[in-house]
Amino acid sequence: MNEQIKDFLKSNRDQHLKQLTEFLSIPSISSDSTRREDIRKAADWLADDLRNGGIENVRLFETEGHPVVYGDWLKAENGPTLLIYGHYDVQPVDPIDKWETSPFNPVIKDNIIYARGASDDKGQVFMLAKMAEVILKVKGELPVNIKFCFEGEEEIGSLHLDSFVEDHLDLLSADVLLVSDTTMVGKDQPAVCYGLRGLCGLQIDLRGPKSDLHSGIYGGAVQNTLHALVELLATLHNNKGQVTVGGFYDRVQPLADEERATCEKLSDDEAMKKLLDVDSLYGEEGYSTTARVWTRPTLELNGVFGGFQGEGLKTVIPSHATAKITCRLVPEQDPKEIGRLIKKHLETHLPVGVKLKVTLMDQAEPFVMPLNHPTLKAAGEALKNAYQVEPIFSRQGGSVPIVNTFHEKLHLAPVLMGFGLDDENFHAPNEHFHLANFDRGLEALVDFLFILPQKLQ
Amino acid sequence: MNEQIKDFLKSNRDQHLKQLTEFLSIPSISSDSTRREDIRKAADWLADDLRNGGIENVRLFETEGHPVVYGDWLKAENGPTLLIYGHYDVQPVDPIDKWETSPFNPVIKDNIIYARGASDDKGQVFMLAKMAEVILKVKGELPVNIKFCFEGEEEIGSLHLDSFVEDHLDLLSADVLLVSDTTMVGKDQPAVCYGLRGLCGLQIDLRGPKSDLHSGIYGGAVQNTLHALVELLATLHNNKGQVTVGGFYDRVQPLADEERATCEKLSDDEAMKKLLDVDSLYGEEGYSTTARVWTRPTLELNGVFGGFQGEGLKTVIPSHATAKITCRLVPEQDPKEIGRLIKKHLETHLPVGVKLKVTLMDQAEPFVMPLNHPTLKAAGEALKNAYQVEPIFSRQGGSVPIVNTFHEKLHLAPVLMGFGLDDENFHAPNEHFHLANFDRGLEALVDFLFILPQKLQ
Repeated sequence: MNEQIKDFLKSNRDQHLKQLTEFLSIPSISSDSTRREDIRKAADWLADDLRNGGIENVRLFETEGHPVVYGDWLKAENGPTLLIYGHYDVQPVDPIDKWETSPFNPVIKDNIIYARGASDDKGQVFMLAKMAEVILKVKGELPVNIKFCFEGEEEIGSLHLDSFVEDHLDLLSADVLLVSDTTMVGKDQPAVCYGLRGLCGLQIDLRGPKSDLHSGIYGGAVQNTLHALVELLATLHNNKGQVTVGGFYDRVQPLADEERATCEKLSDDEAMKKLLDVDSLYGEEGYSTTARVWTRPTLELNGVFGGFQGEGLKTVIPSHATAKITCRLVPEQDPKEIGRLIKKHLETHLPVGVKLKVTLMDQAEPFVMPLNHPTLKAAGEALKNAYQVEPIFSRQGGSVPIVNTFHEKLHLAPVLMGFGLDDENFHAPNEHFHLANFDRGLEALVDFLFILPQKLQ
Repeated sequence: MNEQIKDFLKSNRDQHLKQLTEFLSIPSISSDSTRREDIRKAADWLADDLRNGGIENVRLFETEGHPVVYGDWLKAENGPTLLIYGHYDVQPVDPIDKWETSPFNPVIKDNIIYARGASDDKGQVFMLAKMAEVILKVKGELPVNIKFCFEGEEEIGSLHLDSFVEDHLDLLSADVLLVSDTTMVGKDQPAVCYGLRGLCGLQIDLRGPKSDLHSGIYGGAVQNTLHALVELLATLHNNKGQVTVGGFYDRVQPLADEERATCEKLSDDEAMKKLLDVDSLYGEEGYSTTARVWTRPTLELNGVFGGFQGEGLKTVIPSHATAKITCRLVPEQDPKEIGRLIKKHLETHLPVGVKLKVTLMDQAEPFVMPLNHPTLKAAGEALKNAYQVEPIFSRQGGSVPIVNTFHEKLHLAPVLMGFGLDDENFHAPNEHFHLANFDRGLEALVDFLFILPQKLQ
């Protein structure tokens, strides 16, 4: 890559990390209504940073929720246009007592920065902003046109992004979508992601007797709502790790031999067991660990609760019990259909003596891109230059619902080039981000802007 | 019963209810360490009330927890001695938002008093105190010797009562134990309880991965702790409502034909369904509802929790999950053995990928008394006089662990004469007590003291 830019990155590194620390210090937790002002503060910070970096037409678009930060640079005549997506909101910090540093007081130690949002996704959003800034500062112009679209509601299901995109089709029109919200395959192994799992979320509420009962007086007489709940939830999987909801796998495509081989090669069960401190891994029979995460759908209990949770015992038969569920989906599964199938399964298997309420919640379509797409090739080349290893073309287990929004509504070819690592605790205490990937990732992003126009010609 | 006493009860009713209201206003929640002073206040109130009622040697005995209120009247030469047990502590009030009146601001409406402890057990403790007071005030002496022993830790497992009894065997020695902490069979149907279920409590903690994980990155790769928990808990019962723990029923005695018939007669499934607002009752196949509660053991989930409990969704695979369990036991089941059997079952059925911790907690022996015991006959006669119907000799589903303590350590024949009703919401919001049973129950208790010496002769 360009030596001038390389030097510029080196000599401005301290300044960049200082800015990043400032950005990460803003507690932009989108699910917490008391943090509304902090979300806006993060949006303002980001807009100012884009402006300072030479981006034009920077502004906040109001939504019914948190604002979208927009900015563009459109002076590359005949060059392709890149829409760049990221999110400046973060996950909640509970359980706060498990954090070793304060989540919004970033600490750098051993070339790792610790803070909520460091990896998901503020750290990577910051890199995208710097990518344009350094080229503009060194070269005075960009090799492509770019449009930034950073939202503040990704962690709460991108509630208003769909309608924002629909209302601004011209403003957002582009050739390519660039997203940095995925992970690398390993510490020194960059990846271009060409597929993501979809999502189908729901909540189950069971109601038994009209109020909590004394287990001495009523124990044995009436259905215990918690018994009904565990019995019902236990019907969702069999002992082969498969989801037993009728029709759940009907649209799932068989795994190609090549993908199966790649997944097997990439599965390092011993390393994962050590990382997670478990005696054994577990999942759907007949698939390697990586294949299970990338290519197979799941149905996960994310929360189960009912009855007494205090210290000691309370001899109560609870009136209510709840479960929160999310499915990860793969092509060609349809989130709406999966929601219906699960609801039907629950109704069919409902134990006697309780009433069921199923609330369908967040949904996202699964997504896969053709492997020979020129954008993927450009991303691969840029990553190889920066990391000096062949990147892996991977699928990933997570969902970035907005990828579908942009794909469907704007016909954009997405490239997902992420620099997080799977063990960086996003969505958990002690989130962190390896600065080695900040440095090399930023190089790769810059390089990608130069390579892309050539590949698309 | 004695007309003078009847008149005295009538003319002092308002005064008694005023005193009861005062007693119930003290928030004596034994499980709440911030209520320590309130517990003591309730103990002091009770001690003063006994003193004012003519009881002698009234004092508080300190324990390592909450104090025991003691008082006696021992001037009935050659008369039998009655040890009278009750508890002045109450259950927590959560969920407080489900109370229609304030739990410690008693309200009387339609001859029902609403307050935490109204039925369990402060209302009945108050009746026991008045029983002695009215006889002493009208007659100047009691037909029997009595010793009051009121504890403040029943709702937290009577933590220090065992050692208190052991340390005061002479002080507490008596012929008969009277307890009013059980319920009547129905609104106008008094009962003498001759059997109680025992208790075996435990907590299950499962640990999967060392921290909460993102379900996109790890979903499908690793055991979900909540999946393991519901799978494990679902193995504890079969689809006949039976507990599937090996050996659980081995010592359970078959139900005698007479008891089976009584239980069938007393089961009013339609009334209970209406009361609890459920479409159907549920429990062990082959037994009537009353038989299931009185004579059959249960294993109940009292609390299950793990993962995300907030609004909306959080795509997390939780590290920890917990279940709280209590078993109700019947003769000849041994709480210690049952605890061991459950632990063994859990270990045997533990799903892959999680670690199990089982903590054994509260235990109480089940209990049954010979039906032809003279004390039971005296209680039955007193109840018949007061209610003008034949009382039912019943067993009950709850546990009063201290009955065993007194039975084993002091060789006392217990009589359990309770005046609560099953639907009075003890251990739940909106606890209340029917004052009709306050009036007639008090008459019955007074009468019992006069009849008992004759039957024991």
